[in-house]
Amino acid sequence: MSTLESTAPLLLALDFGGTKHAAALLKAGEKQWLAHRRTLSPPGANAQTDLEVMRSLIHELLQDAQPTAIGVSFGGPVDASTGGVRLSHHVPGWENIPLASLLSKEFGAAASVDNDANVAALGEYRFGAGQGYDSLMYITISTGVGGGWILNGYPWRGAEGMAGEIGHTVIDPNGPLCLCGKRGCLERLTSGPYMAQQVRETLQHSPDRGQGIRDLVGNDLEAVTAQIISQAATQGDELARETLETAGWALGVGIGNTANLINPQRFVLGGGVTKAGEHFWEPVHRVARETALPEVNFEVVPAALGDEAPLWGAVALASDLVARS
Amino acid sequence: MSTLESTAPLLLALDFGGTKHAAALLKAGEKQWLAHRRTLSPPGANAQTDLEVMRSLIHELLQDAQPTAIGVSFGGPVDASTGGVRLSHHVPGWENIPLASLLSKEFGAAASVDNDANVAALGEYRFGAGQGYDSLMYITISTGVGGGWILNGYPWRGAEGMAGEIGHTVIDPNGPLCLCGKRGCLERLTSGPYMAQQVRETLQHSPDRGQGIRDLVGNDLEAVTAQIISQAATQGDELARETLETAGWALGVGIGNTANLINPQRFVLGGGVTKAGEHFWEPVHRVARETALPEVNFEVVPAALGDEAPLWGAVALASDLVARS
Repeated sequence: MSTLESTAPLLLALDFGGTKHAAALLKAGEKQWLAHRRTLSPPGANAQTDLEVMRSLIHELLQDAQPTAIGVSFGGPVDASTGGVRLSHHVPGWENIPLASLLSKEFGAAASVDNDANVAALGEYRFGAGQGYDSLMYITISTGVGGGWILNGYPWRGAEGMAGEIGHTVIDPNGPLCLCGKRGCLERLTSGPYMAQQVRETLQHSPDRGQGIRDLVGNDLEAVTAQIISQAATQGDELARETLETAGWALGVGIGNTANLINPQRFVLGGGVTKAGEHFWEPVHRVARETALPEVNFEVVPAALGDEAPLWGAVALASDLVARS
Repeated sequence: MSTLESTAPLLLALDFGGTKHAAALLKAGEKQWLAHRRTLSPPGANAQTDLEVMRSLIHELLQDAQPTAIGVSFGGPVDASTGGVRLSHHVPGWENIPLASLLSKEFGAAASVDNDANVAALGEYRFGAGQGYDSLMYITISTGVGGGWILNGYPWRGAEGMAGEIGHTVIDPNGPLCLCGKRGCLERLTSGPYMAQQVRETLQHSPDRGQGIRDLVGNDLEAVTAQIISQAATQGDELARETLETAGWALGVGIGNTANLINPQRFVLGGGVTKAGEHFWEPVHRVARETALPEVNFEVVPAALGDEAPLWGAVALASDLVARS
């Protein structure tokens, strides 16, 4: 680890996810990790265990070195101006935790914290599929659907840090009921678990449909996932294709509406569902183009950094701290 | 007109509307017009006649005085960075007219041009219902439905000047057909002429409905307007109330979706339809609140400057030119 001895600032990037955590170390200006650690949360995790897990990852990485700055992606609402966590929707005990100052005191370095969607947007902008595009929206389509903005080259977090919640914009007011109480939210129509739920219901009620999906899960409907649906669609299953078409349509409407409202240059799509292939992507592109006005130009591209987008965004947060100091 | 002789910069504000034009003169820092002129377009107007009409308004206002800067609101797509008009959707001949440089040469002063929705947003922000709110969306609900953004205290025009087109976001994909080719656009559900059209169709097919509206127009269905509908709603007509409820619902969904996406502090609503009273405003407030996530805060307020919002925004454009010089 002789590179640790060079004089370039040492950046520590942390990703507190709902179910997994990652930490990585980088020399400012470099594009390759000096070291990288990733681990799953233990069952029954809370804020305290999350912090313990992260501490041990950090100590493994740092050994005796001292970070110059710390950037943090957190999977929940954050007040980015103070670096305080508001809460986690997945892990108890995170209410009003001053994460940036905790880390700053413990590791003797300035720290910057933002929520995962904003940080992933920043990661894709500075190091991924958004490089050179000063106005973009990053959208993750996974267990949930969320997003983050870059406008004029800077994160746009909204007046109270809540911008980017495209998952709970209404796409079809007569659509199925969402957990949030509304009907036809984008998340309800396009997230992985909801897609699987929709397919399970159809399989239960229509015994003649979805044979390709049934074969893949050996008739165990609980085993249906978005990934299984994608696989069945590739193999020609009609129900699977229809499901991806609906999900892609909903995302296309959401993107087209957003293009009309904000006119960004690019939409960068990440998250597991975007790996569903052409039966998902084709309607996304087509419907987004149909929904936006003809004069409104934009591109829709896949994210480049995959699961590491938040870590790379955390690097960007940390290097901005160094640049400001 | 002795005030013209003082040394404060003299600002010329122009509003090229689709069917009417206005011009006004103001001392920088003042809140009252030195002089103000307004006129309707002649029938069969084109870019040339629009410019002639505006020229004569300007000469009446200026007499022998010299403006320090000119701000312009134009009713159509503009490249705000160059001050060039792209086209007018209402008046022929406006394709690629370098309006800022034309005015600048003719009147010997720097000129700044932007489209009416952006300029009205700026006007409400600097002089009206948006004062003190650094992130807001102005929405006009009138013959058409459009909007303009202020983010971080500056106009957000989008990557190519097309931001704010909330009128053509899809609210209900199974809704009625819009002129743009899509179904259930906000403009299709909430603009004045479309509301009137919808009511006319119901009156034609349901002889027992809308007696209050029929009475107001003496059974001349062509005379039905949004204003008549508002009046009938106030007097208790059920069809009129239902129509305003649907329009208000659609706008509420649009505002709630936009709040989730961008999280601005305020929505400022202008245009004739906003004068429709409580039967319109009540569903707007209620549905916007229901559509946004509980953590997303915002206010929806009526515009303060009425038809003069674009002129006051033009004043802001002109004073920014003075401040920069």
